[in-house]
Amino acid sequence: MKAAVIEKAGGDFIIKEVDKPSPSKNEVLIKVEACGICHSDNFVKEGGFPGLEYPRIPGHEVVGIVEEVGENVSNWEKGQRVGVGWHGGHCFECDPCRRGDFINCENGKVSGIHYDGGYAEYMTAPKEAIANIPEEISSADAAPLLCAGITVYNALRNSGIRAGDVVAVQGIGGLGHLAIQYAAKMGMRTVAVSHSNDKQELAKKLGAHHFINTGEKDGAEELQKLGGAKLILATAPHSDAITSVVDGLGIDGKLLMVAATGEPIEVSPMQLLMGRKSAAGWPSGTAMDSEDTLKFSAMTDTKPMIEEFPLDKVNEAFKKMMDNKARFRVVLKP
Amino acid sequence: MKAAVIEKAGGDFIIKEVDKPSPSKNEVLIKVEACGICHSDNFVKEGGFPGLEYPRIPGHEVVGIVEEVGENVSNWEKGQRVGVGWHGGHCFECDPCRRGDFINCENGKVSGIHYDGGYAEYMTAPKEAIANIPEEISSADAAPLLCAGITVYNALRNSGIRAGDVVAVQGIGGLGHLAIQYAAKMGMRTVAVSHSNDKQELAKKLGAHHFINTGEKDGAEELQKLGGAKLILATAPHSDAITSVVDGLGIDGKLLMVAATGEPIEVSPMQLLMGRKSAAGWPSGTAMDSEDTLKFSAMTDTKPMIEEFPLDKVNEAFKKMMDNKARFRVVLKP
Amino acid sequence: MKAAVIEKAGGDFIIKEVDKPSPSKNEVLIKVEACGICHSDNFVKEGGFPGLEYPRIPGHEVVGIVEEVGENVSNWEKGQRVGVGWHGGHCFECDPCRRGDFINCENGKVSGIHYDGGYAEYMTAPKEAIANIPEEISSADAAPLLCAGITVYNALRNSGIRAGDVVAVQGIGGLGHLAIQYAAKMGMRTVAVSHSNDKQELAKKLGAHHFINTGEKDGAEELQKLGGAKLILATAPHSDAITSVVDGLGIDGKLLMVAATGEPIEVSPMQLLMGRKSAAGWPSGTAMDSEDTLKFSAMTDTKPMIEEFPLDKVNEAFKKMMDNKARFRVVLKP
Amino acid sequence: MKAAVIEKAGGDFIIKEVDKPSPSKNEVLIKVEACGICHSDNFVKEGGFPGLEYPRIPGHEVVGIVEEVGENVSNWEKGQRVGVGWHGGHCFECDPCRRGDFINCENGKVSGIHYDGGYAEYMTAPKEAIANIPEEISSADAAPLLCAGITVYNALRNSGIRAGDVVAVQGIGGLGHLAIQYAAKMGMRTVAVSHSNDKQELAKKLGAHHFINTGEKDGAEELQKLGGAKLILATAPHSDAITSVVDGLGIDGKLLMVAATGEPIEVSPMQLLMGRKSAAGWPSGTAMDSEDTLKFSAMTDTKPMIEEFPLDKVNEAFKKMMDNKARFRVVLKP
Ligand SMILES: [Zn+2]
Ligand SMILES: [Zn+2]
Ligand SMILES: [Zn+2]
Ligand SMILES: [Zn+2]
Ligand SMILES: [Zn+2]
Ligand SMILES: [Zn+2]
Ligand SMILES: [Zn+2]
Ligand SMILES: [Zn+2]
Repeated sequence: MKAAVIEKAGGDFIIKEVDKPSPSKNEVLIKVEACGICHSDNFVKEGGFPGLEYPRIPGHEVVGIVEEVGENVSNWEKGQRVGVGWHGGHCFECDPCRRGDFINCENGKVSGIHYDGGYAEYMTAPKEAIANIPEEISSADAAPLLCAGITVYNALRNSGIRAGDVVAVQGIGGLGHLAIQYAAKMGMRTVAVSHSNDKQELAKKLGAHHFINTGEKDGAEELQKLGGAKLILATAPHSDAITSVVDGLGIDGKLLMVAATGEPIEVSPMQLLMGRKSAAGWPSGTAMDSEDTLKFSAMTDTKPMIEEFPLDKVNEAFKKMMDNKARFRVVLKP
Repeated sequence: MKAAVIEKAGGDFIIKEVDKPSPSKNEVLIKVEACGICHSDNFVKEGGFPGLEYPRIPGHEVVGIVEEVGENVSNWEKGQRVGVGWHGGHCFECDPCRRGDFINCENGKVSGIHYDGGYAEYMTAPKEAIANIPEEISSADAAPLLCAGITVYNALRNSGIRAGDVVAVQGIGGLGHLAIQYAAKMGMRTVAVSHSNDKQELAKKLGAHHFINTGEKDGAEELQKLGGAKLILATAPHSDAITSVVDGLGIDGKLLMVAATGEPIEVSPMQLLMGRKSAAGWPSGTAMDSEDTLKFSAMTDTKPMIEEFPLDKVNEAFKKMMDNKARFRVVLKP
Repeated sequence: MKAAVIEKAGGDFIIKEVDKPSPSKNEVLIKVEACGICHSDNFVKEGGFPGLEYPRIPGHEVVGIVEEVGENVSNWEKGQRVGVGWHGGHCFECDPCRRGDFINCENGKVSGIHYDGGYAEYMTAPKEAIANIPEEISSADAAPLLCAGITVYNALRNSGIRAGDVVAVQGIGGLGHLAIQYAAKMGMRTVAVSHSNDKQELAKKLGAHHFINTGEKDGAEELQKLGGAKLILATAPHSDAITSVVDGLGIDGKLLMVAATGEPIEVSPMQLLMGRKSAAGWPSGTAMDSEDTLKFSAMTDTKPMIEEFPLDKVNEAFKKMMDNKARFRVVLKP
Repeated sequence: MKAAVIEKAGGDFIIKEVDKPSPSKNEVLIKVEACGICHSDNFVKEGGFPGLEYPRIPGHEVVGIVEEVGENVSNWEKGQRVGVGWHGGHCFECDPCRRGDFINCENGKVSGIHYDGGYAEYMTAPKEAIANIPEEISSADAAPLLCAGITVYNALRNSGIRAGDVVAVQGIGGLGHLAIQYAAKMGMRTVAVSHSNDKQELAKKLGAHHFINTGEKDGAEELQKLGGAKLILATAPHSDAITSVVDGLGIDGKLLMVAATGEPIEVSPMQLLMGRKSAAGWPSGTAMDSEDTLKFSAMTDTKPMIEEFPLDKVNEAFKKMMDNKARFRVVLKP
């Protein structure tokens, strides 16, 4: 089969023929129909993720058709359309797994990092990492929902906010443009926060009730004019920008960070203590969370904005994503 | 009446005769029996708190007997033993007040800062700032519970932790020595965290199940050996020390800060995202929270460790507190 | 001024001239623009509510213009458009009030029951019972939102359900037709439950994703086919009908009852234990909750379906409501 | 090996030699040291539980030593002391399992009902049903904690109550005598509710702060005198008695039922609506919950009161339990 392979840290994608994988007894073999490109795939391209080995085929936003199942797999069958996201499997035996908290599995696997992913014609994945895809959504549209989508949907629905609350989405990109739609469709008073006016019109179209341009005005002050945010969903990995809006939180406000960066934000006890505020993080979700995300997206007609590329053009597609020029998610089709 | 007055920012306490106050129509006049000295009283001594004017009599951990009530006061009567804490009154008309969230009143008053407090023979306070004191607790023991006690009791009971969870109390001082007792009596697996072994024996006596000396060992690592803390209650205003234990949080762990300092802590989105962690602040409580604190303290026989001083020795007493030599709260008796 | 007065239990409304009221020092005088008729107004017509005295002017869904304020009222001013709902005032001094839980005030007043309400040209109300009305909503549309609307909006947003969850609204009447709209606009998978097909088309138009006719099919079974309801909002006061859908709850499902009836439902420990289910009640809300309801309604363009009547036709209007023939709320205009 | 077998519904226990079981690949073989007798074992004795087949060896409160593990078992090893409770295994593949909600598995097994249990010298159990037993607790003491203990501990810690709240334990029996201890050790103001004074002294010794004899006084009224219960934990399966205390709930009070009976309680919407009350059920817990229960019990020195019988005397032991004469749990030792 054809695949886009990273052979060593720092290398380009090489399109080549590799062996079509076979599912082991707890695995499912998927014929890939679409695979989103995610910024986290750069962990494979540039190296450094714990447990990563080369050569590696990346891809953790995968939608395709079940082609074959391992002997222990009884809940998936040939012909189903399914997806695989960031959470690529868990051990069932560690303490978090025994509590049912699979996302925090001590031996968890990431698809496309700990095993080969969806930048290929086929991939295998453990049965527990598989999600069903509703008919209403095309494979290309579904793919980014399995990482970008689930992350913000899951963060929002588990944040404790109530319908009508002021929710600010910081950053209008791959995650942010979905978060704005979800927040609006959850009945939140949705505020798009960006550093220029370029995306103002788009933000309104996606459902934002308000728009704040932090290039012109102080983001925290503007949020306070709206009563203070009950939730600021920080979708862009820029810790300085995040730090700058903490004071835009209202009473009981929560800063919820979904963009994985190790660069610290700064916040004082006093800032959080006055008004009982908090800062928290949220990590994607499991296959069931993916199914919930997709069902909600189908019900509310939420779609990612995507640009499609054939697998052969993976280097070009990847560069566009890294250059932050894609509007907003890039999807490969094998 | 006799009072300890700060006449200007930076000045010492001056013991002098001042006019005994009269309650206005919504106020209660209290004959002071005991008043705790709190580190926050230094805001009065050194100046800088918004809305503070001189001369001022500090004191927001006040217990005494109702001597007289204003004409609109029907729920308090002469002879009752009552207390006043940090939260010194609210407006009932701002939006937080209309939501019943008095602690976040936009026009809230702090006793001993926005009006004269308990370093005196008498003080007045708005009726909504008054708490009933249960018989089982002496006035001197009750006083520090109205600020140090309520802050940690209220933070702990509202933190969402469940009995049996690992709770670390960082800092064994005025707040911490109470937090250890409360946490243990709430059925938490209580871990005292200190920077030396000096207070190890005491911590165990107060109910701590474990003790971590961060002077010898890495606090975060030691907490992880216990499974990770579900809650770290940071009671000392040292942001570096707080930053250093963030990685001691377990899954769904929360860093809860009650010590008011403007010095930022540093924490990365990644640190919080992995394991769904959070950092939050908690501000004392209302008069009803004080009553809950006192009832719980009476029921569980929780007492502050105090050193009593006559009002005349306020300068000596205050210095001992500021030098961090008191074990652990200083209480003035007029 | 003209008013519709009930002079004794069981009597009809009598349209007559009465003295225009004057606001006492904590009250606001309102020139009524619209007043909804609520089933609970029948407590006045037929008698029996604790604390009710005659003659009485009912009406607790009142919108009008501030005409005059009492001397202690600083947060409302002449000319503002405001509303008064079921919660007609609280004492600020009982324990629930001291906790900020005004709705559970031990001395709470109901507008139009404990004092004269909005079936008149003017009414007075305590300042704490007043809500601001956003410009986007007409007075006639706003009126029913102050009781029917707030009750279901507040119940839904505080129920702990998450966007995408299956929410069944039982009963499509004054409360139900609003609940369907709110649930849909909060991103819930909304199921309308009715005992005939008459309102099926309407329910879909209001936003329902599914419709169950319990006249034809077993409601509980149909809900289980949808995965089981996370929430069943019981809006009609028919305890048998409520009892019959309890088994339609899914895992962690909650039956939430907002229709005040003293007739018991039946539910066994086993029914609730399997799947960790619960049954709960929810009582309307405060003036701030009214403001939240109205803001959300304005933001999402949620409107009650109303039939307007002049105050003079109150007897005809009231009968239509009691006969369950109104679609769906009746609003009086003086 | 020796076992106590029920050969048909309604039969007595027959002590006989049966084949020692062998663990299948996902199972663990346990040499039984102690097995509690639970009222639910009567489902086996009298028949009627879905999926039950004869002959059957009951017993779901089992503590013993791992003797052998199946080939797929890597997290348990020979020589460990372990336990098995009511929750006897789950499928990992149904939707609740995929959400990590094992207790609601659609294919869940109950130990001693769907497969042979601990009234024997040996038993096997699926690896996911196994809990580790802390050294501090004897096998006989640990056994009842795996069903009676976990049920009330888990119900209490997940109920949302806060330390200091009024918690009533209705029924002082196998579950209730543990619930009183746990509630007190969680810092709850603990009220024992019984229908006679027989157990008053005992209740106080177990930690109850208050005692209500519903044979002499109205339980609901007495609870209201204490401020109203935030939680009533109904541990005895008597629906009339449960119904009678609903009005003892305070604001936001919750009636939590853990005793499995199909006999309905009666409660009106009005009863729950006033004060935002609720009625809910709670089902035992998983192996991890068992571990939490045991750790908490060890930490707080909570022990069941037990009467030990040799396996040979199972009929006598069982009768004592059924006659409600045991104080309070009966434990068999093979
Ligand atoms: Zn991704
Ligand atoms: Zn795991
Ligand atoms: Zn203080
Ligand atoms: Zn205020
Ligand atoms: Zn009404
Ligand atoms: Zn009140
Ligand atoms: Zn049992
Ligand atoms: Zn299952």
